[in-house]
Amino acid sequence: MPNTWVPLPTDSGYGIDNLPYGVFTTDHEPDRPRVGVAIGDFVLDAGAAARAVGAPLDVLDAPSLTALMAAGRATWRGVRASVTTWLTDPSRRASVEPHLIPRRDVVLRLPFEPADYVDFYASEHHASNLGRIFRPGTEPLSPNWKHLPIGYHGRAGTVVVSHTPIVRPSGQRKAPTDAVPSFGPTRRLDIEAEVGFVVGAGSELGTPVGLDGFADHVFGVCLLNDWSARDIQAWEYVPLGPFLGKSFATSVSPWIVPLEALDAARVAPPARDVEPLPYLDDRAAEPWGLDLSMEVRLNGHVISRPPFASMYWTAAQQLAHMTVNGASLRPGDLFASGTVSGPEVGERGALIEITWNGENPLKLPDGSSRTYLEDGDEVTITATAPGPNGTRIGFGEVSGRIVAAR
Amino acid sequence: MPNTWVPLPTDSGYGIDNLPYGVFTTDHEPDRPRVGVAIGDFVLDAGAAARAVGAPLDVLDAPSLTALMAAGRATWRGVRASVTTWLTDPSRRASVEPHLIPRRDVVLRLPFEPADYVDFYASEHHASNLGRIFRPGTEPLSPNWKHLPIGYHGRAGTVVVSHTPIVRPSGQRKAPTDAVPSFGPTRRLDIEAEVGFVVGAGSELGTPVGLDGFADHVFGVCLLNDWSARDIQAWEYVPLGPFLGKSFATSVSPWIVPLEALDAARVAPPARDVEPLPYLDDRAAEPWGLDLSMEVRLNGHVISRPPFASMYWTAAQQLAHMTVNGASLRPGDLFASGTVSGPEVGERGALIEITWNGENPLKLPDGSSRTYLEDGDEVTITATAPGPNGTRIGFGEVSGRIVAAR
Repeated sequence: MPNTWVPLPTDSGYGIDNLPYGVFTTDHEPDRPRVGVAIGDFVLDAGAAARAVGAPLDVLDAPSLTALMAAGRATWRGVRASVTTWLTDPSRRASVEPHLIPRRDVVLRLPFEPADYVDFYASEHHASNLGRIFRPGTEPLSPNWKHLPIGYHGRAGTVVVSHTPIVRPSGQRKAPTDAVPSFGPTRRLDIEAEVGFVVGAGSELGTPVGLDGFADHVFGVCLLNDWSARDIQAWEYVPLGPFLGKSFATSVSPWIVPLEALDAARVAPPARDVEPLPYLDDRAAEPWGLDLSMEVRLNGHVISRPPFASMYWTAAQQLAHMTVNGASLRPGDLFASGTVSGPEVGERGALIEITWNGENPLKLPDGSSRTYLEDGDEVTITATAPGPNGTRIGFGEVSGRIVAAR
Repeated sequence: MPNTWVPLPTDSGYGIDNLPYGVFTTDHEPDRPRVGVAIGDFVLDAGAAARAVGAPLDVLDAPSLTALMAAGRATWRGVRASVTTWLTDPSRRASVEPHLIPRRDVVLRLPFEPADYVDFYASEHHASNLGRIFRPGTEPLSPNWKHLPIGYHGRAGTVVVSHTPIVRPSGQRKAPTDAVPSFGPTRRLDIEAEVGFVVGAGSELGTPVGLDGFADHVFGVCLLNDWSARDIQAWEYVPLGPFLGKSFATSVSPWIVPLEALDAARVAPPARDVEPLPYLDDRAAEPWGLDLSMEVRLNGHVISRPPFASMYWTAAQQLAHMTVNGASLRPGDLFASGTVSGPEVGERGALIEITWNGENPLKLPDGSSRTYLEDGDEVTITATAPGPNGTRIGFGEVSGRIVAAR
């Protein structure tokens, strides 16, 4: 890949090999959302740049990413090649440079309009830990867990962009020792550090998308925090699954990293101990494990480093499963990996696992300790992945601060 | 209510007291969806009628119901009053009549763009029956059932309009006696006869909608068939709930009956044996039980008459519960009652209950019998409710025919 003429800070995660997409506004024009591409410490106003080089593009000159996402993989590749040229060819610099805006001067918006949101449960370590905590005395993994990627639909309408304040939700809570439930603010507000996959190209009702259709349908990847109220969830989730314990807010990072930027991050998934059915069998396919290094910070202190490469089920398997019954896809469909937890305590992606449902409080360097989140706490999840030639692909961050219950 | 000048067939469910909204196209203009209102055997082209009487209305002159739905209750009332005047005042007849199209000449489309879809589980009879079938030897109702309206998110992208063919889904099925799951077309394809509630006016993230906000947010009511693959569902649903067993298709009726048309149908809900928490306590509120008489037909034969008035939880309680954690509403949010089953066998809204998971096959008058649905079977759900002065409010029908697995 040629070098960009844009000055890059050392170790920028937004080099020329990344070029993630987002939607931004400026203080001058707060009501004019536009498509942006991150490069170094700048945001490229992509539609304006296309016009400036004499190649206007409808999919970039738009208030959202929907048109680009829906256009499909050939367009994604073509647009990415164009943006790369604009940012590397010195002869384009004079035209393009006026459309670079310092990132500190833009407001990053929700990068896409979520259509359906599905949350999976693909970390064997996380699912085993939750099984032990929620269903003590039984097998931690349900019998189906290694036969299919367990998932459920979440609330698309409460997907919010990073830095949206998270209001502590209220609901019904009932400890096993309580005779009846009580109503009030959750006492067990938690995070789930996840990776989100954003569908671009839709599919027809009745037609499954196989393992080999993954890159044709998935536009890109973001970070996701599936905020969870554990006491509400524990009381409500039998028999139809999580509902209000999750539906109050799900935060996503503002930059969507194109799948093409993750070629160097692809790794083989872990060995599976159960033979997958043919539609999930990826042993002969190109691997879709992804070697993302994630970091979870609570009030600035690193509390976990979840290893995404340890996930039992890949996103390609999840997409194949989600559509094998003929369910159609729409541009903006979002599906998330499930909490990313590695085998070590320092690799767990949720407080319920880190503190073992509050039994082992987490000590922070400032002298305080936590079982679950307190009002005012801020949680930030970041990640990077290997890029070409020793570079790193940055995912930026998804961050949120807890606000007291209303 | 004055009489309409439109000729009405005897016992029309689409009298002047109903005026349900839909979206239609004509053979002449298949690419121009428009807002329609049903009256007798006609569809009123509502936008054209508004223009013809010299009162053009943006919310009616639109390709979808979204603008009208989002506009809120005062607009809903105003528009309904206007349409009533157009169809009753003889002096408007000359202007309005040219915009009545025989219903057989229009194609009815999906009446709204579903935002989030939530499916509840509010019939005590249905939940008890399913508990006995899916979890024999345990209490049929989970301990939370009478404390909160159990619900979960379904797939909004596969909500389809009545008469859309239903492709038999494939997936993983595992009988308790099988060692491992197998893959193939569902052998236990079922229906769920339900009532759907369509949200018009949205709400702010972080702000619950209480019981008394129901009529301010809910635009209208439709019929819904939550097609279910029971073998896929039984294997997948522990611990995170139904997913592929439901997500392949959900059919809705094309006419949305305005909430205002159901004043005469409101009845007190059944007595509850558990005292509800204050946010669900409707004992001092106006009742939102609804006396809908439903009918389920299989290949033309009536197989069940579910009584909607028997539902334990009302739609107003469901809305209050769904938002009590601060989850926001969007125009087009759809929430369904859950399968409507009364106490009698002839009142059950799903084949799994009618045939007791296939143990007692259903004999049809044509000499055939059914445990679950066969390819080519057609299921139609209809309903009416009491209107003013002894009239009936018709909901039309939601119908679907099973197509062989691909």
